[in-house]
Amino acid sequence: MKQIVDSEIKKIREIAGAFPRHSWQINQLLEADSEIIEFKNKSFHYLVFKIDGIHEEISQKLYEDPFLIGWMSITVTISDLVAVGALPFGILISLQIPQNSDKKWLRNLQKGINEACEIYNVHILGGDTNFDTSIAIVSTGIGTIEDKEKTLLRKNMAVGELVYTTGKLGLGNAFAYAHFFDNAIKIKYQPTAKLKESKLIQNYATACMDTSDGLFPALSVLSTINNVGFNLCNSFQNIIHDEALAIEKKSKVPLWTFLAGPHGEYELLFSIPKDKQKEFEQACTEDDWKPIFIGEVIAKKQIKFIYNDKTIECQPALIPNLFQKCNTNIQLYFDLLMNQDANWQ
Amino acid sequence: MKQIVDSEIKKIREIAGAFPRHSWQINQLLEADSEIIEFKNKSFHYLVFKIDGIHEEISQKLYEDPFLIGWMSITVTISDLVAVGALPFGILISLQIPQNSDKKWLRNLQKGINEACEIYNVHILGGDTNFDTSIAIVSTGIGTIEDKEKTLLRKNMAVGELVYTTGKLGLGNAFAYAHFFDNAIKIKYQPTAKLKESKLIQNYATACMDTSDGLFPALSVLSTINNVGFNLCNSFQNIIHDEALAIEKKSKVPLWTFLAGPHGEYELLFSIPKDKQKEFEQACTEDDWKPIFIGEVIAKKQIKFIYNDKTIECQPALIPNLFQKCNTNIQLYFDLLMNQDANWQ
Repeated sequence: MKQIVDSEIKKIREIAGAFPRHSWQINQLLEADSEIIEFKNKSFHYLVFKIDGIHEEISQKLYEDPFLIGWMSITVTISDLVAVGALPFGILISLQIPQNSDKKWLRNLQKGINEACEIYNVHILGGDTNFDTSIAIVSTGIGTIEDKEKTLLRKNMAVGELVYTTGKLGLGNAFAYAHFFDNAIKIKYQPTAKLKESKLIQNYATACMDTSDGLFPALSVLSTINNVGFNLCNSFQNIIHDEALAIEKKSKVPLWTFLAGPHGEYELLFSIPKDKQKEFEQACTEDDWKPIFIGEVIAKKQIKFIYNDKTIECQPALIPNLFQKCNTNIQLYFDLLMNQDANWQ
Repeated sequence: MKQIVDSEIKKIREIAGAFPRHSWQINQLLEADSEIIEFKNKSFHYLVFKIDGIHEEISQKLYEDPFLIGWMSITVTISDLVAVGALPFGILISLQIPQNSDKKWLRNLQKGINEACEIYNVHILGGDTNFDTSIAIVSTGIGTIEDKEKTLLRKNMAVGELVYTTGKLGLGNAFAYAHFFDNAIKIKYQPTAKLKESKLIQNYATACMDTSDGLFPALSVLSTINNVGFNLCNSFQNIIHDEALAIEKKSKVPLWTFLAGPHGEYELLFSIPKDKQKEFEQACTEDDWKPIFIGEVIAKKQIKFIYNDKTIECQPALIPNLFQKCNTNIQLYFDLLMNQDANWQ
């Protein structure tokens, strides 16, 4: 429910009028109770939907910059669409903002939304603005898959397959560390959903998910769904983002904690059959990007990695569960990570 | 972003596993980053989308019963789909609930969601659960329109056409009045989106919108979009719901205030050309329901009605604007309504 009278219509035009709309949409802003789209090209095989919200990152003040809030509200959803191999089509967005939001703040929020939409070539199909004391943004993404053989699920990973990501990991957690514990460290965090890479990956991968919650939580989910484990046989030096490596050097924050979550980097994490490795890597080179080799799928349901020259073998849920235990208390979470690290020394 | 590790997977299965899923969905719960739907029947002409949230009703404690919160979270969105003449297909739902929600509370919320889905014959396509101190629910509805000629917009209303609703009005505001001002009055409020009626209306109506925000706010929007006014020539006694009439008798709350909003009743409000009136009313009788005649579309941009034997003519936005002025202060809103009433005496 929202009131839409003259003053509200003006406000809605101010807020929603700033978003690019799809040329297949048959209604203009406010002309209908729902958004109506003519699917001119009905060649798609699957329609794909995803709803996702930004709540905790705002309430915990990890995201304060309105541009970043807007950017992420689109990116989180698009990232999930491309993780299944879909081509993003459009977005619906539900804003929950304070009644008297500052105009500059609102403009920057819109700018973040618009720049993200532009980079992913999607349009806002509709929206909803609600006024409340706290800020929260929920977006729904709609996409299509033309060739059903190229659909990527989290399941269908097999023992012996190789695990890759689209890029180095740990920037999300490095950003969170700097934000909460060391303001002297400035980290630029504005991840992009891996649209281009997904188009290539879907030709080779057996399973895929994004790292929106960090690497270890993603591996834990994949472990549960596929009933497998993972041997992270590549060195963390090769996997982890330079900004996180720099924090480890400066502040002795253990490297593995940058992979622990829960604030991820929106890379794709996927499995490739061994016999397609060469062809896949060659295709990536031709496509002008370099996948990061992480390790391999193993039968035993555990996560295995080398840390300080020791082999660690742990239950897949051990590391992600530390965040569950802290009940969103960030200092407690950090202490739990440090305790775990001490156990492994 | 949300953490999904073993304990969380259990929680998600507990929350989302309770919802019915669509048989066209190719992924099971948690198996993919997005929800993938095979549109087996691609005969539809338009795809229709709507995002809507329940925020203020919860934060203002108008909705406290979890069953009602669940029911309404689906109904608000389905109502907007049927207002454009769409057949609802599925729902995505984003829950923002406290981390340690009581299990009974959660079961009742799920019950409200499920019973609403059942009555509208829609399935939950996907969801997202976030933990925060306040409760908010956002749902996205997806529907289809097979025959583009039967699409209903808010625009295309013409002077001289007749205005109807699918049912009597004012129950939403009667419920709010009882809730905030007179606990001795017990009102059952559980509106249903007008799915069946919409299928008939789309054969006759020139324009349509729902009364989710009450009658006067809806008329104000239609006035702006169509550049017209409305003469509400039927008596309020014939238009207003019995429960509201009873409150007027008991507490002398002016009748027109039950139409003022902002808490509506999810009827459809629509216009019928004069030359189709007979045929339309006949079709409704055969379909076993009775539309309520409200008045007619006039050229002058005003709302005209008879109140206490006086003819009132006011700007379309006058009444809805009273709620804007009160900044969600319900007592102040009531006082503004009473002031306005005194002006009209």
